[in-house]
Amino acid sequence: MRNIKITIEYNGTDLSGWQLQKPGKRTVQGEIEQALKIIFKKHIRINGSGRTDAGVHATGQVANFKIDSPMTTAEIVRALNGNIKDNITILSAADVPENFHSQYSAKQKTYRYTIMNRAARPALEKDFVWYVPYKINLAVLKEEAKSLIGKHNFASFAATDASKGKLTAKETTRTVYELIIRKKGAVITIDITANGFLYKMVRNIVGALLDAGTGQIAPGTVKKILKAKSRAAAPGTAPAKGLRLIKVEY
Amino acid sequence: MRNIKITIEYNGTDLSGWQLQKPGKRTVQGEIEQALKIIFKKHIRINGSGRTDAGVHATGQVANFKIDSPMTTAEIVRALNGNIKDNITILSAADVPENFHSQYSAKQKTYRYTIMNRAARPALEKDFVWYVPYKINLAVLKEEAKSLIGKHNFASFAATDASKGKLTAKETTRTVYELIIRKKGAVITIDITANGFLYKMVRNIVGALLDAGTGQIAPGTVKKILKAKSRAAAPGTAPAKGLRLIKVEY
Repeated sequence: MRNIKITIEYNGTDLSGWQLQKPGKRTVQGEIEQALKIIFKKHIRINGSGRTDAGVHATGQVANFKIDSPMTTAEIVRALNGNIKDNITILSAADVPENFHSQYSAKQKTYRYTIMNRAARPALEKDFVWYVPYKINLAVLKEEAKSLIGKHNFASFAATDASKGKLTAKETTRTVYELIIRKKGAVITIDITANGFLYKMVRNIVGALLDAGTGQIAPGTVKKILKAKSRAAAPGTAPAKGLRLIKVEY
Repeated sequence: MRNIKITIEYNGTDLSGWQLQKPGKRTVQGEIEQALKIIFKKHIRINGSGRTDAGVHATGQVANFKIDSPMTTAEIVRALNGNIKDNITILSAADVPENFHSQYSAKQKTYRYTIMNRAARPALEKDFVWYVPYKINLAVLKEEAKSLIGKHNFASFAATDASKGKLTAKETTRTVYELIIRKKGAVITIDITANGFLYKMVRNIVGALLDAGTGQIAPGTVKKILKAKSRAAAPGTAPAKGLRLIKVEY
């Protein structure tokens, strides 16, 4: 059996996230598995590097699947794209060792969160940014972000369910390698690279950072939230549409 | 009566262009006039700086309308945006002299055409770019574009209807002040500034330039097409979704 790794770009706007759901819900996994079924005449399960929620985008999601076929990887890319609607694109395919697993073999991932910071609501970019009309203090944003770099228990930034004592400290510990905040015109991007992410971790971090940047919480609060190790301590979650998975490294 | 100038951003994807059409078709003009009717309790006609087709976007469209109201311009912006869906945004409003007309007073306009030049079809940017997978020779593109700068009879680049002898040479003459081609990664942008544009002129120019850039027509052909002064001489029209109106100057 061959093990095929694919890299995927998708526009999450009209999709119900990555993971297979009930019939009638279009998901990235569902659409790709449906295309594989058309091409190879049988059900082939794909493993994603991780789930993304409805509305979340990707320019570098990775998945893998096992096939027994003489098709070249270029032919596989063409056949998949020919059988998937244009809000999902297979960027590339490659043969990888049999033990490669897109989720378990991943060493680090990078997510980008994009904020549109201007008075007028964005019509053109409405599905790709979080629109924040309030003044954002970029220096505060960058200073608060520093406390998140390194190996920490990120329980405060896990989704509510995960923080209800269901996960151990070991399970909520991650290492953030980089957190880079840039501003160009009205657009602020927050790129976070870590060895892994808890469910909704990026959106919860961005929610807290923005509360600090707009003065709704005092400087130093993000560090206190982290130390509290409880989701109850943290502010709201940033909207899904501002988030995109840009890179998975192995 | 006050004369109000508004600047508008819109995502043309789900709109049937600028101009009012039959009921059931959502257009930019229609949506704004509907909002004005809700706010001022009567029908107020707006003048756009020019029509845009279905799928064409704008970040700097301009329109004007006459009202008799004590509302401030900030209040007008808020009231309009509050009554229009989020694919159209009023960026600003200003009181202008009574004789200002968004179309007739315009001195120059700038359109941007965006091409995604890479092997994989773009899923994320699918509604905002023309996807061209073939190799594009940027030097040829720039060289061919030079012949279009200045005052010319652009009949060859007018929409088919307009070139069937219905318009005089005077009516199809325009002055192109600037035509700037840039490439950043896989994205090529073509910015064209002129004192005015014939219907579909930008998309027809881009169609011809791309045919030259991909080698489908020989170098020097764009100049020949221009000199022919007939739409029959020109290659196809670039798709609407890659086009956006970015500036109207008065």
